[in-house]
Amino acid sequence: MVKVNKDYLKLPGNYLFSEIAKRVAAYKEANPQADIVRLGIGDVTRPLVPAVTDALNKAVAEMGNEATFKGYAPDLGYAFLRETIAKADYESRGCTIAADEIFVSDGAKSDCGNIQEIFSVDNVVAVCDPVYPVYVDSNVMAGRSGAYNKETGRYEGMVYMPCSSENGFTPQLPKEHADLIYLCFPNNPTGAVMKKDELQKWVDYAIKEGSVILYDAAYEAYIAESGVPHSIYECEGARKCAIEFKSFSKTAGFTGLRLGYTVIPKDLVFDGVSLHSLWARRHGTKYNGAPYIVQRAGEAVYSAKGLAQVKEQIAYYMENARLILEGLKGMGYTVSGGVNAPYIWLKTPDDMTSWEFFDLLLNKANVVGTPGSGFGPSGEHYFRLTAFGKREDTLKALERFKNM
Amino acid sequence: MVKVNKDYLKLPGNYLFSEIAKRVAAYKEANPQADIVRLGIGDVTRPLVPAVTDALNKAVAEMGNEATFKGYAPDLGYAFLRETIAKADYESRGCTIAADEIFVSDGAKSDCGNIQEIFSVDNVVAVCDPVYPVYVDSNVMAGRSGAYNKETGRYEGMVYMPCSSENGFTPQLPKEHADLIYLCFPNNPTGAVMKKDELQKWVDYAIKEGSVILYDAAYEAYIAESGVPHSIYECEGARKCAIEFKSFSKTAGFTGLRLGYTVIPKDLVFDGVSLHSLWARRHGTKYNGAPYIVQRAGEAVYSAKGLAQVKEQIAYYMENARLILEGLKGMGYTVSGGVNAPYIWLKTPDDMTSWEFFDLLLNKANVVGTPGSGFGPSGEHYFRLTAFGKREDTLKALERFKNM
Repeated sequence: MVKVNKDYLKLPGNYLFSEIAKRVAAYKEANPQADIVRLGIGDVTRPLVPAVTDALNKAVAEMGNEATFKGYAPDLGYAFLRETIAKADYESRGCTIAADEIFVSDGAKSDCGNIQEIFSVDNVVAVCDPVYPVYVDSNVMAGRSGAYNKETGRYEGMVYMPCSSENGFTPQLPKEHADLIYLCFPNNPTGAVMKKDELQKWVDYAIKEGSVILYDAAYEAYIAESGVPHSIYECEGARKCAIEFKSFSKTAGFTGLRLGYTVIPKDLVFDGVSLHSLWARRHGTKYNGAPYIVQRAGEAVYSAKGLAQVKEQIAYYMENARLILEGLKGMGYTVSGGVNAPYIWLKTPDDMTSWEFFDLLLNKANVVGTPGSGFGPSGEHYFRLTAFGKREDTLKALERFKNM
Repeated sequence: MVKVNKDYLKLPGNYLFSEIAKRVAAYKEANPQADIVRLGIGDVTRPLVPAVTDALNKAVAEMGNEATFKGYAPDLGYAFLRETIAKADYESRGCTIAADEIFVSDGAKSDCGNIQEIFSVDNVVAVCDPVYPVYVDSNVMAGRSGAYNKETGRYEGMVYMPCSSENGFTPQLPKEHADLIYLCFPNNPTGAVMKKDELQKWVDYAIKEGSVILYDAAYEAYIAESGVPHSIYECEGARKCAIEFKSFSKTAGFTGLRLGYTVIPKDLVFDGVSLHSLWARRHGTKYNGAPYIVQRAGEAVYSAKGLAQVKEQIAYYMENARLILEGLKGMGYTVSGGVNAPYIWLKTPDDMTSWEFFDLLLNKANVVGTPGSGFGPSGEHYFRLTAFGKREDTLKALERFKNM
């Protein structure tokens, strides 16, 4: 008889955002008049910018015309987009990344979830705590963990790197050996960043240990301060030890359009095998390329108009972040993040658990945020708010916080 | 040190279409004036129909407007599309498939490649020979095979079901036990179909053996004859043993737009575990939904205008198929397929190997097709031609066949 993948069964209960949705739905049913403000799930609210919709319309017209119709895209992405990215995101920052080291995809979530496939099951995985759940869950599903321990909220066999107020929400180098190290900066959920000299230590460590850093830079466009690296390839040696994930979701509001890319330098060779070839093979076998029209939309983000328009959009969100950060500080809350990232990380008052604070906020203020404990045990007693709301909703939420 | 997934290294040499591209490029470099006609890779050439481009334009406008902008899509697909599919593709054919048993994705290739993840590594996999390489390769990459045997052209540990002229290119029930059985009808590459009573035998077999049939119905829209099932759920009991993959690629020219769906009935329960929940978990963790604009485009395919327009497009391709089939028959070739499928399966003349015929055709006629051996050892001495070309190219290719 068919046997299922038992590793899936290690995953406990509900996915964080399903549980939030359930509690909000229950509250709405009991209180149908409630005007709920959502600063929870990290989804954007501003529409696509005109440069992007213009590019989409133009590409749709091409697809409707026999002479310009495009069938299958190249598995790894159109050259026009890969070359634009190589130039704008790497060459301009002094990083040596060739266009053919860039793999275009339907988003960083897919790539972050799928990348583990090219590695053996017996690698040791290290993740930050709190962490974006996809890194952990995709490795659990592939068998790179033992059982889930309800007491600790952790999986056996994985290395956890706590990020707390003591270390400024950036992890220390792990004491145990780790093969695959997931890092995300600017960080989701804490909004913390790593300075270039700190990140360099991780690159040095990975080279020494023969590890690979899986670097999620999805929030790179939100970096405002200098000294914070926009790419791990700004660090010396990173071409030998790092894979980088980038997304158009938050940079240009593509959460519903789906576009991202992954950088795998050809210098990444382990056991004599090129990770670049393995990923190309994976893409070639299980993926058929991002839609032509969406790749044209991605290219338009890098046009002069596109850059100006998305800059304005990011500034809009970051003004929300500033308002939340300053507003909550003024009310006496302990908050961090929100300067180089669209996330504000809030310490719950009176030692409340994350879910207690979630329920309080939902009931008393009709505001929805994300319980920090949903991102890992070190997120307990914390709470994530996002800057992706509409301005009026953000202000409304702050007003309600004040009156709570 | 990081260890790579060694199972990837079992895959021999080049992917079929890369090798074709390489040989064509070499020929073009040596013969820059050559006017090459491509009836090789199964990519469509007709532009998107007006109903689809209209829907895309409308959806792009929504995405550019604050009031109608859409962020993350539901992981499993928008209800408007799932409900449309359930009604048009299943209810109308008397199949009991609920909207929430339909998982919308970026295409059947991704789903066919990823589905094996929800099953244990120690299941026995059975595939037809010749076969669409994705079924085999994705299982090899996951460790569900032994080594590749160069002599036989097969992987150890997998069950192969030969499809030859003796059995009308439809497989016999395997003699060995198989857990996961991949079937694709109308078939790629042979263009063969299975009648409903034949398919029923497979469903009965799967129920008896506790197996799951992974049924790829990507070419369903090309079925012209009666008695050929459009869905495996036309067979009694299939809800207990079958997963079905569908694609908009060939039905509506979406190869460059990317949209497909997978049906997992809730009756599929093994070891007490619902395959529906496992796939939902997989989608939720590693996928972020198909783009809103593309899902609206998919919905438009089912509108009255859309249905009429894609019907016309399919008729165009099937007239190509008829021309190729009749033309080659008239020249004395042994051909099959091409009646309920856009593929024509040609026996190479004079016992030439598939690649010998490929080279001959490229050199003498400047026509590119696909060597049958690229789909498996039983495809040796066969050659696939597709009906997806432009009419003038199809006629040109036939003219050159005649003069060869």
